[in-house]
Amino acid sequence: MKAVYFDGSALGYDPEFPDPTGESVVRVSLAGICGTDLQMVSGYMGYRGVLGHEFVGTVAESEVPDMVGRRVVGEINAACGVCGMCASGLERHCPDRTVLGILGRNGAFAEYLSLPTRNLHVLPDSVPDRQAVFVEPLAAAFEIAEQVSIDPRWRIAVLGDGRLGQLVSMVLDMSADVVCFGRHPDKLARLGRLGVRTSRSMEPSDAGSFDMVVDATGRATGLADAARLARPRGIIVLKSTTASGGNQDLTQTIINEFTLVGSRCGPFAPAINALASGSISVDGLVDSVYRLDQYEQAFERAGGGALKVLFAP
Amino acid sequence: MKAVYFDGSALGYDPEFPDPTGESVVRVSLAGICGTDLQMVSGYMGYRGVLGHEFVGTVAESEVPDMVGRRVVGEINAACGVCGMCASGLERHCPDRTVLGILGRNGAFAEYLSLPTRNLHVLPDSVPDRQAVFVEPLAAAFEIAEQVSIDPRWRIAVLGDGRLGQLVSMVLDMSADVVCFGRHPDKLARLGRLGVRTSRSMEPSDAGSFDMVVDATGRATGLADAARLARPRGIIVLKSTTASGGNQDLTQTIINEFTLVGSRCGPFAPAINALASGSISVDGLVDSVYRLDQYEQAFERAGGGALKVLFAP
Repeated sequence: MKAVYFDGSALGYDPEFPDPTGESVVRVSLAGICGTDLQMVSGYMGYRGVLGHEFVGTVAESEVPDMVGRRVVGEINAACGVCGMCASGLERHCPDRTVLGILGRNGAFAEYLSLPTRNLHVLPDSVPDRQAVFVEPLAAAFEIAEQVSIDPRWRIAVLGDGRLGQLVSMVLDMSADVVCFGRHPDKLARLGRLGVRTSRSMEPSDAGSFDMVVDATGRATGLADAARLARPRGIIVLKSTTASGGNQDLTQTIINEFTLVGSRCGPFAPAINALASGSISVDGLVDSVYRLDQYEQAFERAGGGALKVLFAP
Repeated sequence: MKAVYFDGSALGYDPEFPDPTGESVVRVSLAGICGTDLQMVSGYMGYRGVLGHEFVGTVAESEVPDMVGRRVVGEINAACGVCGMCASGLERHCPDRTVLGILGRNGAFAEYLSLPTRNLHVLPDSVPDRQAVFVEPLAAAFEIAEQVSIDPRWRIAVLGDGRLGQLVSMVLDMSADVVCFGRHPDKLARLGRLGVRTSRSMEPSDAGSFDMVVDATGRATGLADAARLARPRGIIVLKSTTASGGNQDLTQTIINEFTLVGSRCGPFAPAINALASGSISVDGLVDSVYRLDQYEQAFERAGGGALKVLFAP
């Protein structure tokens, strides 16, 4: 099959990559490039294999015959199902997990992928492929409400108007008063049309005025900016995998007694429901669609500030 | 009066430092050297003035005549009393606060100090001075239970067997199952005699096995050690002001969805009550007592791994 892979030093395209087998095999219809994919090409996670973990597709083969032909999205963490974490419902933190396109399991930038059948979610007909491909990152936005009990009286700042910042802003704006801080007039305008408040700059009056701040900048300066906006004892949610990684200063976190919440993959059910009900709109989020053999252009575009770049394998 | 001050580059002793005035003036009986004092001598907070914020003393002058002659400890954050933080009960985070011996207010390594009268807590006779001087750091240990709802089924690791690690271990051991990890057999033995479990090394089986980990090491490696011990979605409490400061890597915090809780000063009432009732013992925590003019030996001793070093001005 055709596949885009990372060999540890460079991206490559292979028109004859071995087909996946076992569990359920899904023919990929659309797959999205995520900030994590861009970081992994820079060496994050030390992963080698087919990239990609945001997808929608159709089941081609399955140990469960009823699943064949169904249109699905899939949870990316393949857990052992028997350890303490799995037993307590935290399969996404199973220590023996593989993760689609991220850890020990080939991903979605290919014609086919395989996942445990229990990871698949059958899509309602009302959610077309170009919406369904956002279920995985939208679930990551819903993860915040899974981890933090959000008070509807809160003022929430979302830092970053990119792919993830857009989804996080929309999800949190259903629960409280959100301001998305970004640098791109066109991206902020999209949120504005959906009724989300936006700002292009931090004003002195913004300092220390937010109950919760979500860093979705993907930049190393995200935490420092969040610490300027959060009130003492406020919550800072870290959504940017590598940007908030190394070389961070936690002095203000201790002095102001912030609570920092690391946040990663989330629950698929509320994400699918939000798209099916129309409570979340992903209209205008797709920037462009490429074939797999156009991977160089696709990654260049995704890394250049575009919203969502998709592969149609 | 006699006082030990920091001029921005070095510690000094002045036998004729100006007496403090206004509010309530307290004659200091004992004052403790804290890890923060040691960090401030290295430039932390950019403070200049009389150091010291842990004390017990007797009110010498006061705007409230009834207070004169009372034996007191004092909350170190002097708040404005009118801002939003103060109105919401978070005076310790008042943006216009001064902090005894830390920010804009001369401290306790002197014969006299001044504080707002409302900051003072009159001590019960059952708490002698050598116990009362631990109220401030003990309150900082109680702050953890103020910020985190502790489940009695939790396994809690406390990293560090020094001054603060001792107090934190004792306080948390009242609520859940605590293991204090340290390097000093004598310090760990003290906790052992009080019924607190201790360990001199992290075993492979400790990894990812604690629901909450408190970093009280005062070392820059504290967070990384805590991240090894905490389970996914676990809580890491940051108690070491500067040690957990610069140059920290938050990658594991995001992947494992840890919650990091910055924690600083705490409530005095439960600390005083715990000493009065005997539920917390500070026996064996005083290493040595110095006069103010012996400040060089005192700071050298406190910086060399001793438990609590006191001044008796």
